[in-house]
Amino acid sequence: MSGFPEWSPSERVVEASIIASLREVFALHGFAEIETRAVELTSRLAGDSDAAKEIYALSRLAAEDKPDARLGLHFDLTVPFARYVEEFAPSLVFPFRRYQIQKVWRGERPQEGRYREFYQADIDIVARETLPAHLDAEVAIVMARALKALPIPKATIHMNNRRLVEGFYRSVGVTDVPGALRSVDKLDKIGSDGVRAELEAKGVSSTAQDAVLELAKIHSRDASFIGAIDDLWQTSFTNGDDEAEKLFADGVAELAALVNAVNAAVPGTAVADLRIARGLDYYTGAVFETVLEGHEDLGSICSGGRYDSLVAGGGFPGVGLSIGVSRLVGRVLSAGLASASRAVPSAVLIAVTDEDSRGASDAIADALRARGIPAEVAPSAAKFGKQIQHAERRGIPFVWFPDAGEVKDIRSGAQESARADSWEPPAEDRWPRTVRT
Amino acid sequence: MSGFPEWSPSERVVEASIIASLREVFALHGFAEIETRAVELTSRLAGDSDAAKEIYALSRLAAEDKPDARLGLHFDLTVPFARYVEEFAPSLVFPFRRYQIQKVWRGERPQEGRYREFYQADIDIVARETLPAHLDAEVAIVMARALKALPIPKATIHMNNRRLVEGFYRSVGVTDVPGALRSVDKLDKIGSDGVRAELEAKGVSSTAQDAVLELAKIHSRDASFIGAIDDLWQTSFTNGDDEAEKLFADGVAELAALVNAVNAAVPGTAVADLRIARGLDYYTGAVFETVLEGHEDLGSICSGGRYDSLVAGGGFPGVGLSIGVSRLVGRVLSAGLASASRAVPSAVLIAVTDEDSRGASDAIADALRARGIPAEVAPSAAKFGKQIQHAERRGIPFVWFPDAGEVKDIRSGAQESARADSWEPPAEDRWPRTVRT
Repeated sequence: MSGFPEWSPSERVVEASIIASLREVFALHGFAEIETRAVELTSRLAGDSDAAKEIYALSRLAAEDKPDARLGLHFDLTVPFARYVEEFAPSLVFPFRRYQIQKVWRGERPQEGRYREFYQADIDIVARETLPAHLDAEVAIVMARALKALPIPKATIHMNNRRLVEGFYRSVGVTDVPGALRSVDKLDKIGSDGVRAELEAKGVSSTAQDAVLELAKIHSRDASFIGAIDDLWQTSFTNGDDEAEKLFADGVAELAALVNAVNAAVPGTAVADLRIARGLDYYTGAVFETVLEGHEDLGSICSGGRYDSLVAGGGFPGVGLSIGVSRLVGRVLSAGLASASRAVPSAVLIAVTDEDSRGASDAIADALRARGIPAEVAPSAAKFGKQIQHAERRGIPFVWFPDAGEVKDIRSGAQESARADSWEPPAEDRWPRTVRT
Repeated sequence: MSGFPEWSPSERVVEASIIASLREVFALHGFAEIETRAVELTSRLAGDSDAAKEIYALSRLAAEDKPDARLGLHFDLTVPFARYVEEFAPSLVFPFRRYQIQKVWRGERPQEGRYREFYQADIDIVARETLPAHLDAEVAIVMARALKALPIPKATIHMNNRRLVEGFYRSVGVTDVPGALRSVDKLDKIGSDGVRAELEAKGVSSTAQDAVLELAKIHSRDASFIGAIDDLWQTSFTNGDDEAEKLFADGVAELAALVNAVNAAVPGTAVADLRIARGLDYYTGAVFETVLEGHEDLGSICSGGRYDSLVAGGGFPGVGLSIGVSRLVGRVLSAGLASASRAVPSAVLIAVTDEDSRGASDAIADALRARGIPAEVAPSAAKFGKQIQHAERRGIPFVWFPDAGEVKDIRSGAQESARADSWEPPAEDRWPRTVRT
């Protein structure tokens, strides 16, 4: 059943360690965890985004009445988060900082690299009234640190600003700004000729098309994009829409401050990239996409932005970013970027001399566990050679011989006398670890 | 939307700590974690169990073709585990010890205390060929320890043995053993008269009804049930079915050994209780149900047993137990058995003197985080009184004043000078904790 990734025990060690690492970074930065139910009313799920077209609706198999489509599985963590904030607002303290790591479902047609069930990891900060701009930088910095802690190559967060883009588009004569944005968002897929054709169809003038495509070429690792964008502004500016001009100027300043703040905290992470559009109308300020060095084909591994209203009726401005965890884990595993040091938790297999003395082996295992050392007892009192083989096959590094009172590192063959109330495995062998390869 | 529990951030702290505690106990005993996809073919999910009648089928909302019911959400973790073992058998090492903690879905009619989405936590050990009996005791011991580590009252694991029951039933003249078991399983719901009526309808003789109901009364905290059961056997035994007699004798011995082994490891945990039937035909040896002292109305919080074949075609004998985590969490929260020490991860709020010096506050937060102390920076440079109030409302115990170089415990009012590279919060304040109340 394609599109539903399922990992082996050792692959799950890698996935679980990636999730644990994300949780730790988010929590160290004061984000509280929530989980929302996987099921929402479809009326709430339905919307304009591509993902909303892929909703899985639920019906009770045994129900005699015809299947109704009132319930559906969430396809992201933003829609349920919005509902959660609306529902729990009276008991939440704002700005509310939350992280959420859960599976989501999208009924896509099965195809290479498209998952129909996958983990997402989201952080958002939402306010009741106004949300200071420094929080845009904060969420980007937290995500940059979270990505840096993972066994993946360098991730670069590309940033743009919707106000900058809207101010610019309007000032060069584009009237349907969301429509133009949606076309520019396809630049990678359909190329500049394709974008031009779409803009043409939307009534965008040829000179405005030039300006829009020139804007998309501008990028810099610091505030130096301002020079290029000012030059372009001088040559493209066509009307005297003061409001648009102010939007543009504010957006430029915000983007420059954002890139500088993120690079100050996590050097070399942020790029101002005026090509970033993001499909959703939802965003109103900073927008983010993240590229993984050497794995650009994955597309953006971490996206998001600033929005004025989390909820449909308005209110709750916020900023958030979302990692596509399963796609990242899938790539880590398929590209061999990291692997588990072993598939099982046990650091030690306690051998069993004969079934009558199984209790003695159990007691050793319990003494180790009481000191936080994962251990298991051999399933049968086979010959020691067989028991060592069992440990080897399971990937357990140490075998304990109760009668001899000795423990053997079966990788090196080194054997030493040991007491269950004091022996320690090397720190790196205590638990399975995820190792960059 | 009833039946879909959703927790506040501080309630989620309790749920997450319960799940983390389960994971730790399971892993210390050498159980590897797996996760299976939430979605299975409905043909695989469908079956005789009550839960199978409550399957949620999936259909793509946007699909033009009529909804097909090929995919459904798993309603437990046993069916997907069986499929996983079949699929991955060549790469697994047996006996395979796994734990699995995931949400499951059941399309029950909404009613008090019935969840439609909930966490289960399962452990199983499965073999390729034969599974030694000591593993029955091991899974029960691991679960007893896992339950003991939770903020809940004493849990007692009630145990029976299918071979004992089948041998006894056949020896007193019951021909439809699974049918009789299903009736006895309802003893709590319909009472002994109700069970009698059902047995009568199934053609069970009056003396056999007596014997079956007398058997269900036998229980003991050690092997002393053997005396009572032998007495009953002497008066009830009606035919000379040697195979049944052997089943009975083997079952009695197994059950006695099991109760003794579990009580030796976790004193006072196990009860031989000949009333335990379990609805499923699936079980072939030990069966388990678990009662929480003072919360008997919850029903069994942890159930399972030994089976000859995990997979439909036969093969993979195993033994497993499953905790209904969400029902347990729901009770812990509603009965106030435990609560979180705070709702947010942050131990410290770094105050901001003015927006120009926000960078200094960020630097202090980062120095604390680098030493594993969760911290956040005040969202705005309001008056210190307001910032302290913000910490109070969020439940953050400490506020740091960068200019003064001092940290204040806002609960006691105590304030001391502190350095970001050395200050430590009291250990119990570092992270939110779940506290028994």
